[in-house]
Amino acid sequence: MRILDSINNPQDLKKLNKEVLTDIAGEIRKEIINTVSKNGGHLASNLGVVELTVSIHYVFSSPHDKIIWDVGHQSYAHKIITGRRSKFSTIRMHGGLSGFPKMSESEYDAFGVGHSSTSISAALGFAVARDLKKENYKIVAIIGDGSMTGGLAFEGLQNAGHLKKDMLVILNDNEMFISKKVGAIAGYFAKLLTAGMARKFERKVMETVSRFHSLGSPFWKFIKRVKVMLFPGMLFEEMGFTYVGPVQGHDINNLIAIFENLKDMSGPVLLHVITKKGKGYIPAEEDPVKFHGIGKFSIETGKIVENKTVTYTKVFSDTLTKLAQFDNKIVAITAAMPDGTGLDKFAKKFPSRYFDVGIAEGHAVTFAAAMAAGGMHPVCAIYSTFMQRAIDNIIHDVALQNLPVVFALDRAGLVGEDGGTHHGSFDLSYLNYIPNVIIMAPSNENELQHMLKTALDSNSPCIIRYPKGYGTGIALDRVPNVLQIGKARILRYGVDICFLAIGNHVETCLKAADLLVKTNINAFVVDMRFLKPLDIDTIREKILVRTRKFITIEENALIGGFGESIKAFLCNEGAIVKCIGLPDRFIEHGDLRALRKKYGLTPENLIKETLRMF
Amino acid sequence: MRILDSINNPQDLKKLNKEVLTDIAGEIRKEIINTVSKNGGHLASNLGVVELTVSIHYVFSSPHDKIIWDVGHQSYAHKIITGRRSKFSTIRMHGGLSGFPKMSESEYDAFGVGHSSTSISAALGFAVARDLKKENYKIVAIIGDGSMTGGLAFEGLQNAGHLKKDMLVILNDNEMFISKKVGAIAGYFAKLLTAGMARKFERKVMETVSRFHSLGSPFWKFIKRVKVMLFPGMLFEEMGFTYVGPVQGHDINNLIAIFENLKDMSGPVLLHVITKKGKGYIPAEEDPVKFHGIGKFSIETGKIVENKTVTYTKVFSDTLTKLAQFDNKIVAITAAMPDGTGLDKFAKKFPSRYFDVGIAEGHAVTFAAAMAAGGMHPVCAIYSTFMQRAIDNIIHDVALQNLPVVFALDRAGLVGEDGGTHHGSFDLSYLNYIPNVIIMAPSNENELQHMLKTALDSNSPCIIRYPKGYGTGIALDRVPNVLQIGKARILRYGVDICFLAIGNHVETCLKAADLLVKTNINAFVVDMRFLKPLDIDTIREKILVRTRKFITIEENALIGGFGESIKAFLCNEGAIVKCIGLPDRFIEHGDLRALRKKYGLTPENLIKETLRMF
Repeated sequence: MRILDSINNPQDLKKLNKEVLTDIAGEIRKEIINTVSKNGGHLASNLGVVELTVSIHYVFSSPHDKIIWDVGHQSYAHKIITGRRSKFSTIRMHGGLSGFPKMSESEYDAFGVGHSSTSISAALGFAVARDLKKENYKIVAIIGDGSMTGGLAFEGLQNAGHLKKDMLVILNDNEMFISKKVGAIAGYFAKLLTAGMARKFERKVMETVSRFHSLGSPFWKFIKRVKVMLFPGMLFEEMGFTYVGPVQGHDINNLIAIFENLKDMSGPVLLHVITKKGKGYIPAEEDPVKFHGIGKFSIETGKIVENKTVTYTKVFSDTLTKLAQFDNKIVAITAAMPDGTGLDKFAKKFPSRYFDVGIAEGHAVTFAAAMAAGGMHPVCAIYSTFMQRAIDNIIHDVALQNLPVVFALDRAGLVGEDGGTHHGSFDLSYLNYIPNVIIMAPSNENELQHMLKTALDSNSPCIIRYPKGYGTGIALDRVPNVLQIGKARILRYGVDICFLAIGNHVETCLKAADLLVKTNINAFVVDMRFLKPLDIDTIREKILVRTRKFITIEENALIGGFGESIKAFLCNEGAIVKCIGLPDRFIEHGDLRALRKKYGLTPENLIKETLRMF
Repeated sequence: MRILDSINNPQDLKKLNKEVLTDIAGEIRKEIINTVSKNGGHLASNLGVVELTVSIHYVFSSPHDKIIWDVGHQSYAHKIITGRRSKFSTIRMHGGLSGFPKMSESEYDAFGVGHSSTSISAALGFAVARDLKKENYKIVAIIGDGSMTGGLAFEGLQNAGHLKKDMLVILNDNEMFISKKVGAIAGYFAKLLTAGMARKFERKVMETVSRFHSLGSPFWKFIKRVKVMLFPGMLFEEMGFTYVGPVQGHDINNLIAIFENLKDMSGPVLLHVITKKGKGYIPAEEDPVKFHGIGKFSIETGKIVENKTVTYTKVFSDTLTKLAQFDNKIVAITAAMPDGTGLDKFAKKFPSRYFDVGIAEGHAVTFAAAMAAGGMHPVCAIYSTFMQRAIDNIIHDVALQNLPVVFALDRAGLVGEDGGTHHGSFDLSYLNYIPNVIIMAPSNENELQHMLKTALDSNSPCIIRYPKGYGTGIALDRVPNVLQIGKARILRYGVDICFLAIGNHVETCLKAADLLVKTNINAFVVDMRFLKPLDIDTIREKILVRTRKFITIEENALIGGFGESIKAFLCNEGAIVKCIGLPDRFIEHGDLRALRKKYGLTPENLIKETLRMF
């Protein structure tokens, strides 16, 4: 029997002798590898913080003390320790544990998360609440070096440094965020790593340096560089934090000793911990990018269970790389997601035209806007859910100035196992009201290549939203074509009812229409292609002359989405319109197929709704 | 004749002798004071950068070189110099010059703006485009210390430090952002100010310090503090910028000499300039907060032309302060807008429960979310247009976790003279699709106090959006009451048609309905109060039994707004619905009354649309 099986909560952990904690860490690591190999999930990040998590729970007393994970894709060990060991095999499954901390799942999850860079702001919020209520608990935020590049983290650091509340921020520096490092701050962390050594020579160098300084400005500059080497954490110190570190993050005894010391320190403290992503599982140590977020894989070989069909991401990637050969003004921007967006391929081929700005979506968009103003053709690829962070940049910097930036929103619609924080369920709603933009959604991967070409050709702000995962398997045209902006295409002519769809549910409509033939109902199927401009002419001229019954379908929130735009037009036409889409609630995590079934995004439901109208 | 009258573009300026530039600056200053006293506008910020602007245009060659203003509320001198002197008297007037840089207004406005912290990202975008296109121009971004607190600025600095492009960022440190300083970075700038003196003692102190360091860790901490004093700009140096400064920002000759030196420096350079807000106009120097954004005023006395009617802002302020006396869990958060939001009063009364986080809307919201999770009752007051920057924080940190944060969105709807970047025209659309939230808009200032009480009582995420400026003048109830969530109120019973409104246009409907009596049309007027939950029961039970003709009115984009929500419900009820609201375009600047007339937000237009339906 594993020692782990006796741990039902952090209190059980505290009862143990420090000596067995390393064994526990090994057992947790094994449990994580086993489960992720079956369920998919975040592997490398979780393996990197096992010792850190055990040490935190050994010293601090959750749920009384608040432990706040940034992004939360490293909280598996935390979940296993905090009473969820027995359910851990259900992680990311429909009805099972969430892959991220979630307040409603456990009192040990002090603050829910999924997006990056929120933890410092959250920790500060708790600290202020605690002090105003004269309560007495500790607060620990754990944030990766990647998340630290987000502007929100900087805003949180600043305000925390100003308010001087007691709180501990652990900078989990794994020398790696989702892909490779970018940004000056990442370079800064690299410098810190050398600081340990540098410290030893500190006095000596300082003396030397001060002697040379009188020689003038080249030395002045040199001195500054040396200072940065000599004084690790100056950046945090300057912002009002007490900086401690860097310390090694896989030595439990050492970590516990440090936490015992830091626990009662006053004011904001930043502990800089060095960990290794994928720690303890060789394939993940060697390729932490591949093992960041991963599907099912073989533990022995580290190989992923592959699917032959091409993904939307790959078609986007291939098409952009192809088009960029003929247009040297095309530049590509990502916010720390080169692999997820498929821009890694573009980066290899056109390194000087590729920009990974770090986890900084707002900057990515404004930066792209100015590149467009400077005469380039920027394509900014960001997941639908993360683009929620740059809406003002789209409005204020791109759309208001009518600058031709192309936005490729991958993972639009449901994303499955990552759940509520990650579903791209709102983009049609958060984009539709923005003046000047063109919004498209491809009904298959062949359409995607045409839409990308169309967007680049349009000289307007354009958004293309497309789903996670595999396409329909349709053959790809050899050359991407320019589509007519704002023009729908009627895929199937009917008489009795009209299905209007956008994006991946055009396919759903075609299937339903075929099945309906046997009930003698003959349905139009229209691929609207564009949410904006919306092709009301086609509906008016080709459909309304035949039928006034409509069903719309979209993988987006119904409120403010495609269906409501259709209703806004059809309302005064005496039509009956049923809208299928996501209801007004946050959608849980689970298998995509199960979620689509539950929310009626299937041919079966479309048929059911159709029959109701007759 | 003024020398200024001979300046039709920056080339004219360059022809002049350096000696007369100070006179020109004086003339520009006078022109700005005169015009703002008549038109209203940003005064203190513009007076602070007159010499800086003259010097920049003397050395750099706009429009070839790109001059990028952050926020843009300091671009008046720039406009006067760059060919817009003769139109300057029309600034902020309908059809006249914009109060902010605007690409479509002038080729000298390299990048449009209005919101804060975008300039570094924009400068970098231009720099990348320039280098890829092998063009050859200089890029200058001018950003205030307040804007530097925004996370976006940090993201821009980081990426610029990483890419090492040639560009100059001028940090315009006026020791003051919109209100008083907050945040660690502001404290950092304060430290820099003392650095000039400190430098002189530098070598001496360094020697002393290095001797003491062997004594142990208290000295270590001491050394770090001393370092910060000794090495101004370390923060920027660490991020990859060459730091120069601080230099005095009102000495044109000195500024020109510095710009001549910096012009050809390679890599990103940060020049730290110290200026005085309101410089040259005593009332503005003495009270730069009052003279930040201001209405018409008397030049002699500095007194503002007042209106007796109470503003929505004041009612919010008074009500919150009143309620906070009885509920010590109420905390208030602003993002550098204590005066504009009315929280200054709360701050004076409850300093420990008041938080100005700087220009950091994202952090403000996440910080508030965690305070709610920690048991407080946070009220986060941010202008509608600026809340566009924190939509993901509302979705991901507040709504998803169903945390009871109250958002007070001032300046919702049209704001008038500040124009396209500042209109609060989208909030109903960017909020409506978010699950779990309650959205209300008061039809008058008395309703506002009840809605604030209702929101605090609701234990849900709540948004109250209310307009800029004066209320209706209605008497205020003595005590704020709790309204029934999601319940509309029928203000006028009718037969022939129903007017549905939310917010400040309920009043418009009442006026129209009264006037319609003489045409024998009897209209219902319903104050919906809540966009969400929407009271469809009242419409179904009380209105649809009488009429199927509806007109909705709102001061928000029509797409995704209130009217479309009504249509979504009424579409299948055989109703005819006309929606009045803002069209799908960015709304220009101008007098509020003129804009409302132009976009049909008047009783007259409501009457016209009504008559069309009969």
